[in-house]
Amino acid sequence: MREVFHHSLEDVQGRLVEIAELVTIAIDKATQAFGTSDVSLAEEVIEADAIIDEKAIALDELAIEILARQQPVARDLRIVVSALRISASLERMGDIAEHIAQLTRMRFPERAIPKGLKGTFTRMGGLDVEVSRQLTELLRTQDLEIADRIRNADDEIDELHVSVFEKVLSDSWQGEAAATVDATLASRYHERFADHAVSISKKVIYLATGDWTPDTDDTFVVPGGAQA
Amino acid sequence: MREVFHHSLEDVQGRLVEIAELVTIAIDKATQAFGTSDVSLAEEVIEADAIIDEKAIALDELAIEILARQQPVARDLRIVVSALRISASLERMGDIAEHIAQLTRMRFPERAIPKGLKGTFTRMGGLDVEVSRQLTELLRTQDLEIADRIRNADDEIDELHVSVFEKVLSDSWQGEAAATVDATLASRYHERFADHAVSISKKVIYLATGDWTPDTDDTFVVPGGAQA
Repeated sequence: MREVFHHSLEDVQGRLVEIAELVTIAIDKATQAFGTSDVSLAEEVIEADAIIDEKAIALDELAIEILARQQPVARDLRIVVSALRISASLERMGDIAEHIAQLTRMRFPERAIPKGLKGTFTRMGGLDVEVSRQLTELLRTQDLEIADRIRNADDEIDELHVSVFEKVLSDSWQGEAAATVDATLASRYHERFADHAVSISKKVIYLATGDWTPDTDDTFVVPGGAQA
Repeated sequence: MREVFHHSLEDVQGRLVEIAELVTIAIDKATQAFGTSDVSLAEEVIEADAIIDEKAIALDELAIEILARQQPVARDLRIVVSALRISASLERMGDIAEHIAQLTRMRFPERAIPKGLKGTFTRMGGLDVEVSRQLTELLRTQDLEIADRIRNADDEIDELHVSVFEKVLSDSWQGEAAATVDATLASRYHERFADHAVSISKKVIYLATGDWTPDTDDTFVVPGGAQA
């Protein structure tokens, strides 16, 4: 039985890694599409999200089957429950990549990236891609040092998120309302993407160490500068 | 054992209802605070969110304990897994109410509701409160007709969300960038709040009927009018 469970867990882990890889492709393409107004690349991201959704649902079914058949307890049980939660967060990350692609498609042939914020969004997108890659590695290797890197990148993304609001609310901001809306939504999407990665990291840390930090801290970045 | 399980489920259900009631209070107060720039009411919502978080964590622990001790299978297992997911969605709804309160506090003594959108946000907030009340009833009674009402209110909220963007992007919009940012964020929060309620409704329907609609449809409302 122990052998069977171990094998099932490997299956679960492999599927989480696979979904994380798809999410990385999605956020990478979405970032490129957003940066270059590439509407066909944006379409690819939008279409591919259904695959992430399907794989997340299939993984959930597998996890429920493992619970039913193998009746894990203690730490084993928590691993399976955590896999369900990680899958839900990955699915949301895929949705967010899709939203960035949808923003790109909706503004086409105009640029979705507001003038004056190209550098900021290129950096934010690059960090989200990096976070997603690191997360995939974390899920694959359970090397907890990677969790620190994700946390650091998330801090940097939060700072960029604040800087977007500072820019938009500054006297020098010349953007029309559409640019302000796009900057607000895109920045929020990028920030939430990384939040989900941090949330998954915490679950991996918990499984490795038993050290649980409740995952209830969606950063509220004040659209005026400071954080509350 | 069956008796014990039934008793445990009643406990789980009672706790879900209790959290939903707290979420209703939170969104009700947040809506009032947002509408009247009542910063002390906003503070109440922000402080009370920790209680929702704690209760969600405690419920998750109970669900895991039920899985470990009672080893439910088939439909019973799915009920417990669904409770974990419903708890996560309720916790997010509490976060969103908190975000609306934070927006209010951050703009104080200015109004967070942009001029020209007071009616829209009053209606959106009122609908979110109604959705939250109906959701509490649905969790309490499992009366599936309530799910239709939640879905209808969500449709109306989506329309209002579109109308916020129409307003902000219209030639008549006189708001400064701060007003545009606030309208964008607040509208997105209200819309997501109802999305979570719909997502929970689907889980309740699934448990009652076995009819599962995968929950991956975060509406993307195009900030230009149409929906994609």
